[in-house]
Amino acid sequence: MHAITIAEPGGPEALVWDEVPDPVPGEGEVLVEVVAGAVNRADVLQRQGFYNPPPGASPYPGLECSGRIAALGPGVSGWAVGDEVCALLSGGGYAEKVAVPAGQLLPVPEGMDLKQAAALPEVTCTVWSNVFMIAHLRPGETLLVHGGSSGIGTMAIQLAKAVGARVAVTAGTKEKLDRCAELGADILVNYREQDFVAEVQQATGGAGADVILDNMGAKYLDRNVQALAVNGRLAIIGMQGGAQGELNIGALLMKRAAISATSLRARPLGEKAAIVAAVREHVWPLIDSGHVRPVVDREVPMNDAAAAHRVLEESNHVGKVLLVTP
Amino acid sequence: MHAITIAEPGGPEALVWDEVPDPVPGEGEVLVEVVAGAVNRADVLQRQGFYNPPPGASPYPGLECSGRIAALGPGVSGWAVGDEVCALLSGGGYAEKVAVPAGQLLPVPEGMDLKQAAALPEVTCTVWSNVFMIAHLRPGETLLVHGGSSGIGTMAIQLAKAVGARVAVTAGTKEKLDRCAELGADILVNYREQDFVAEVQQATGGAGADVILDNMGAKYLDRNVQALAVNGRLAIIGMQGGAQGELNIGALLMKRAAISATSLRARPLGEKAAIVAAVREHVWPLIDSGHVRPVVDREVPMNDAAAAHRVLEESNHVGKVLLVTP
Repeated sequence: MHAITIAEPGGPEALVWDEVPDPVPGEGEVLVEVVAGAVNRADVLQRQGFYNPPPGASPYPGLECSGRIAALGPGVSGWAVGDEVCALLSGGGYAEKVAVPAGQLLPVPEGMDLKQAAALPEVTCTVWSNVFMIAHLRPGETLLVHGGSSGIGTMAIQLAKAVGARVAVTAGTKEKLDRCAELGADILVNYREQDFVAEVQQATGGAGADVILDNMGAKYLDRNVQALAVNGRLAIIGMQGGAQGELNIGALLMKRAAISATSLRARPLGEKAAIVAAVREHVWPLIDSGHVRPVVDREVPMNDAAAAHRVLEESNHVGKVLLVTP
Repeated sequence: MHAITIAEPGGPEALVWDEVPDPVPGEGEVLVEVVAGAVNRADVLQRQGFYNPPPGASPYPGLECSGRIAALGPGVSGWAVGDEVCALLSGGGYAEKVAVPAGQLLPVPEGMDLKQAAALPEVTCTVWSNVFMIAHLRPGETLLVHGGSSGIGTMAIQLAKAVGARVAVTAGTKEKLDRCAELGADILVNYREQDFVAEVQQATGGAGADVILDNMGAKYLDRNVQALAVNGRLAIIGMQGGAQGELNIGALLMKRAAISATSLRARPLGEKAAIVAAVREHVWPLIDSGHVRPVVDREVPMNDAAAAHRVLEESNHVGKVLLVTP
C-alpha cells in the first residue's frame, strides 16, 4: 500500500507518499481500507518531530479515517467485511489501509457520505469526553469554546447547543465568527479586538462560563480562571500558548472550580473504547437526526498531505480538512 | 447569651468572651444550645481579619458545634426540641447558642459523647465532599494527605482506609507520623527530611497518588502534580503555602489529571445540605460501627478560646481542639 511517511521531521514537504508494507490486523483489530483521513494539529507536531507516536502505534500520521472493513483479525465480533465505518486511530490514518482496534470503530451515520465521516471521530470523541464526560456540561449552562471555528470548535458548538447549553466562542476574524453563529454560537468574541473575560462576564450577567474548552494552555490559564463561573470547569486539550502557566489558586478556590487536562491519543485501549461507545450512544443519534453535522473546510488528495498541512498552518480554514485517498 | 467576639482583628487575645443578644432561628432553622465547638484554621484567619464571614452568617467565629436543640424555627420538620445534634455552621459556633439551617444538622452518633461530636462536622464534610464527591477515591487507589495529623488529615486517613484505599501522609514530626500510622496510614513522609514526590513514587512503584488532599496551595502545586498518577485528582482545600502557583500544564495533560479547589463555608445552603446528607448516608454508619472516630487533641473552655488558638498556631496538636461551653 501507500502511506505518508516522514523520513526527517520538518516542514510540510517532509510528508512523502511512499510505498510501504500493508498493516496486519492483530487480535481484536480490523483492517480498514481507507477512503479518507483528516488532519489534526497533533499531526503537524508529529511532522515537526515534537509528538512521537505512542508505543505500538503506526509510525505514519493520522488520528482518524473513514473507509470499508477489508479483513477481521482474530476475536472480532459485531463487524463484517465490507462495513462502512469511521475510526479513531492512534496513528496511521494517512494511508491506504490501517489496522484498528474494533473498540475504536463507529458506523457511518445514515445517509452520510463516506468521505465526510472521516471528519467525525476525533472531534466527537474529544468534545464528548472533555465537555460532557469530564466537565459535565448541563442544559442551561454556558460553554466557552476557544477556537470556535476549528474542527473541535465547530463540533463543540453544535453538541452544546443540542443539549440546551448556551455557547460563547472566540475566533480571530469576523468570517470565522459568522460561521460559528450559523452553527448556533450565542456569544461571539473576536480575540484580536476584544477581551474574552470581559465579553463573557457581560453576556452572562457577571456569572462567567460554566465550562471552558481550551486549546491554548498557559497563555490563557489566568484569564480562563477569571472567566469561569462558580462551580466552573476548565477542560484543557491543547497547549498552543505554552505549557507552563500561572495559576491563581485563590480565585479557583473562591469559585470552587476545577481544571482538567487530557489528550485522547495517549489513552489506553479500554478508555478509548469507552469514549467511542459513549459517542455512539449520545452523539450518533444527534448526527442521524440532522441536529449535528461534520463541518468540512475542504478535501485534499492524501498524496498531497503537505498542502493540507499548509492549510492548517495558515489557519484560515473552518472545520476539518480531509485527505482523500487517490 | 455569651459568645466569643472579635472587636479588633489581631492575636489570640482579640478573642473576648462577651455578653451578646441571643440568635433567633429563622425559616428552616433550629436554635442549638451549644455544648462544644471546635477550632478550624479558618477561625484563625477570621480572628486576624483575613476571612470575613459570608453575607448572612453570624459575626462570631466557629464553623461547627454539638449541643441540644432548644427551639425550632418555622418550617422545620424531622427534628425536635431536646435532640442531641452536631452541626456544620457558617459561623457562630464559639457561643452558647447558635441558629443553624436544619439541612446542616447531623444526629450525634450512637454512644458518642456529646462534646466529642463537635469534632465531626467540618472534617467529615470537607473530606467526604473533596476526596469522595469531587475526586472519587476508589478502593485500591492511593490517597496522599498533606498534614496527616490535622483534624482533616486524621479523618481523611480513616475514611480512605474504610473504603479500601491506600493512604500516604506527610507530617513534620515522628510523633505525628506515628499517630497517622495508628489510624491506618500506610506511607509516612516526614516533610522536613524527605521529598514527598520521591517517597510516594517509590511506595507506589512509580505510579504516584491517585488522589491528593492538599492544604498548601501554591507551595506544593508543582510537586503535587509531579506526585499524581495517571488520571490523578488533586483536591486543594487550603492555601497555607500561598495562592499564586506555577502549573505545569504539560505534565497535567500527559497524566490526564485534574485539579479542584474548594471551600466549604462559602457554599450555598443547598450544596451544604447535599454534602451533610451524603455524610450522614456514607460516613455516619462508619462512625456508628466504630470504623471511624473523631480524633480530639484536647478540650479547652470556650471562654478561653485564645488558648485554643495558640494550640493551633503552635501546631503540635493531633486532631481537633474542642471548645467546651463553661
